Amino acid sequence: MNEQFPSALLERAVGEFAKLPGVGRKTAMRLVLHLLRQEPETVEAFANAITTLKREAKFCKVCHNISDTETCRICSNPQRDASTVCVVENIRDVMAVEATQQYRGLYHVLGGVISPIDGIGPGDLQIDSLVERVKAGGINEVILALSTTMEGDTTNFYIYRKLEPLGVKLSVIARGIAVGDELEYADEVTLGRSIVNRTPFSGVI
Amino acid sequence: MNEQFPSALLERAVGEFAKLPGVGRKTAMRLVLHLLRQEPETVEAFANAITTLKREAKFCKVCHNISDTETCRICSNPQRDASTVCVVENIRDVMAVEATQQYRGLYHVLGGVISPIDGIGPGDLQIDSLVERVKAGGINEVILALSTTMEGDTTNFYIYRKLEPLGVKLSVIARGIAVGDELEYADEVTLGRSIVNRTPFSGVI
Repeated sequence: MNEQFPSALLERAVGEFAKLPGVGRKTAMRLVLHLLRQEPETVEAFANAITTLKREAKFCKVCHNISDTETCRICSNPQRDASTVCVVENIRDVMAVEATQQYRGLYHVLGGVISPIDGIGPGDLQIDSLVERVKAGGINEVILALSTTMEGDTTNFYIYRKLEPLGVKLSVIARGIAVGDELEYADEVTLGRSIVNRTPFSGVI
Repeated sequence: MNEQFPSALLERAVGEFAKLPGVGRKTAMRLVLHLLRQEPETVEAFANAITTLKREAKFCKVCHNISDTETCRICSNPQRDASTVCVVENIRDVMAVEATQQYRGLYHVLGGVISPIDGIGPGDLQIDSLVERVKAGGINEVILALSTTMEGDTTNFYIYRKLEPLGVKLSVIARGIAVGDELEYADEVTLGRSIVNRTPFSGVI
């Protein structure tokens, strides 16, 4: 569409929305016109939510997860097992692990994985602070829960080399056939690993 | 995902984004985290664009198109043919027709079409103001450019009944085979109409 905006204000708003990832100009137009039809308070609430988040959100000084306070809800919860730390890439991964309700330890958010192609080196990630955390003591196990990609594997190995001398127990999340998947559609590498890393069976899984 | 938000501010921002049409909670999360990674000024500019639009955008008192001024750019342009009015459903349709660069007249934005199932009657649309505009004189032709749906046809007919006594020339945009389409895939109704409403051919289309 060769755009002839009837309003410069509209053009600016559409331009801002179109900067969001995965939002094209047509979608941006639809979203902006939707907001334009809402009550002024609704639009204010929308804009306010994002600016307040940007202005006031902190990153937990312990695990670097997003937080409303200096130390996040998880790190400051005495019910959690502070001797176990799960290393994840980002905030969404913390939420994904939390959603399983299978983990009661703490986290460490790296902020990404080592990816030379994207110009992300170890220094851009919260790896040094992880090493410091382990050195400070009290941590028995570090669980690596990064993406099962080449970048994730590289990062796992880098962290392994850093933490191994410290004598902390290191583990990596299980790789195998996803629950609900059929064997014939699984890729060979995954299926191979699931056989090599088979677990004892005692009637229930 | 059984969401355990690590931050109430994050939860609020994601909730606001998830209210947008076609944006689910996962997409909302992705958009919010994207904005959170931007510079504070970028986020302010984003929020400011939409609140300024809502606060300052006007609707043209002549054609009801969105405008930064009392009368929109199109209606106040002396180069445009003020004797022709194209009736469209919404602002996006004005932009779509403008993008064709085939039309030099003015517009009239109805704000929708008659749709009893959605509770939209003629009184909810800018139909009375269209009748007033025609009664005021100076308009030779009204072009109906609504969706080719049952609701669009109903609205076309309603407007026809209102304007017909006023002796203004009424026309409707051509319905036929879309440019680039193959005949065998066209539906019967469209193909039938395109034959009935065939146009004289003089070497070029």
